[in-house]
Amino acid sequence: MRITVLGTGLVGRLLAAKLDNLGHDVAVGTRDPAATLARTEWTKTGDVDTSPYSQWQEEHPGIRLLAFPEAGAHAELVLNATGGASSLQALALVGASNLAGKVLLDLALPLDFSTGFPPTLTVANTDSLGEQIQRAYPDAKVVKSLTSVFCQVMVEPSRIPGEHNLFVAGNDDEAKQTVRALLESFGWPGESIIDLGDITAARAAEMYSRMYFTLVNALGTFELNINIIRAD
Amino acid sequence: MRITVLGTGLVGRLLAAKLDNLGHDVAVGTRDPAATLARTEWTKTGDVDTSPYSQWQEEHPGIRLLAFPEAGAHAELVLNATGGASSLQALALVGASNLAGKVLLDLALPLDFSTGFPPTLTVANTDSLGEQIQRAYPDAKVVKSLTSVFCQVMVEPSRIPGEHNLFVAGNDDEAKQTVRALLESFGWPGESIIDLGDITAARAAEMYSRMYFTLVNALGTFELNINIIRAD
Repeated sequence: MRITVLGTGLVGRLLAAKLDNLGHDVAVGTRDPAATLARTEWTKTGDVDTSPYSQWQEEHPGIRLLAFPEAGAHAELVLNATGGASSLQALALVGASNLAGKVLLDLALPLDFSTGFPPTLTVANTDSLGEQIQRAYPDAKVVKSLTSVFCQVMVEPSRIPGEHNLFVAGNDDEAKQTVRALLESFGWPGESIIDLGDITAARAAEMYSRMYFTLVNALGTFELNINIIRAD
Repeated sequence: MRITVLGTGLVGRLLAAKLDNLGHDVAVGTRDPAATLARTEWTKTGDVDTSPYSQWQEEHPGIRLLAFPEAGAHAELVLNATGGASSLQALALVGASNLAGKVLLDLALPLDFSTGFPPTLTVANTDSLGEQIQRAYPDAKVVKSLTSVFCQVMVEPSRIPGEHNLFVAGNDDEAKQTVRALLESFGWPGESIIDLGDITAARAAEMYSRMYFTLVNALGTFELNINIIRAD
């Protein structure tokens, strides 16, 4: 499948590398490829050091770096791995015509770190980033998923031992099936993926992030997840 | 221990009955005891039918129904099981002097059902009900807990099989220890109770409710809980 990952941070790179390994035709989308390649600083995502993009690109020669519109045109399926606070701007640059009719797997969290850690959300409770994106691009098939785990766990769920769950939410059942198949190819057992319902359930996924980051603080690790247990 | 449960709904009653069974000296606080006893309608909490209070009281003769100020004066420890949207008004009637120096176990969720199910919150993201209560009553020792499970599970955790977690949050370590001991007497294993930190972590507990109620919809049961799993 031709897949575009929007975002050049650790999250986008881990997903792009995994999809490349799985044999997909992968592009990474950014605002200005030359500027992305000119960066030399190391950054930190969670507790993982992240190399300059140019260095990472040398290790992944099959993954093309494209400007947002070209990256969108490349895709049959788009992953939004941009920072949630700037996702709407990034998607505007991709362009509605490059999103129409496509599955848009949105894994961004609208985090605001201006008051420290754990972050607050730029939208919550009565709305969500997932809903905002679906409203802005009604012809895209937005599926919210992967927001509940650290990026290393997204693409290697066995890093967390035993049974644990992942969520999908979206209005289009076929799009959720496509995402589910992708997640299963990452190693998520089919029965571990819970369908939360339509895109308004993105509120649950995004608001859960406060519990997640609070647990990160309390337990001292980003690599945690939850297993949902029901009464017999 | 002399314990007062604020609130006459199913949640308050299940907690009062459990505490009575455990040998505590229990009072239930309400705005107007005569009005509470005059009610004849059955109500529904989650998927459980709830009898008129007078009928329940006959089955629990050891539990006194008191007006909020007297109920507060009775207590060494206060449980807030009022509806979260009206908790601050209820606590104002209890009175600051009746809360000063006491552990105030706050299990209320500030739910707003005006737009249907799952409910939104009346406060979220940059503040929480737990913090509002702590600010309003700085001499009380507010501990947020029990918000993450259905009331039947609060007092009988074994209804959910296997390992699953509960959270506490609050500024006073001794108060959290008192609550932890109470939870253990309910049947929660000590190692299942996770300390989320100070009272700002009430945001995590309260915002998690959106995920909880979305899972209730998706899975068709209120009796569910989460088990936190970390990477090895």
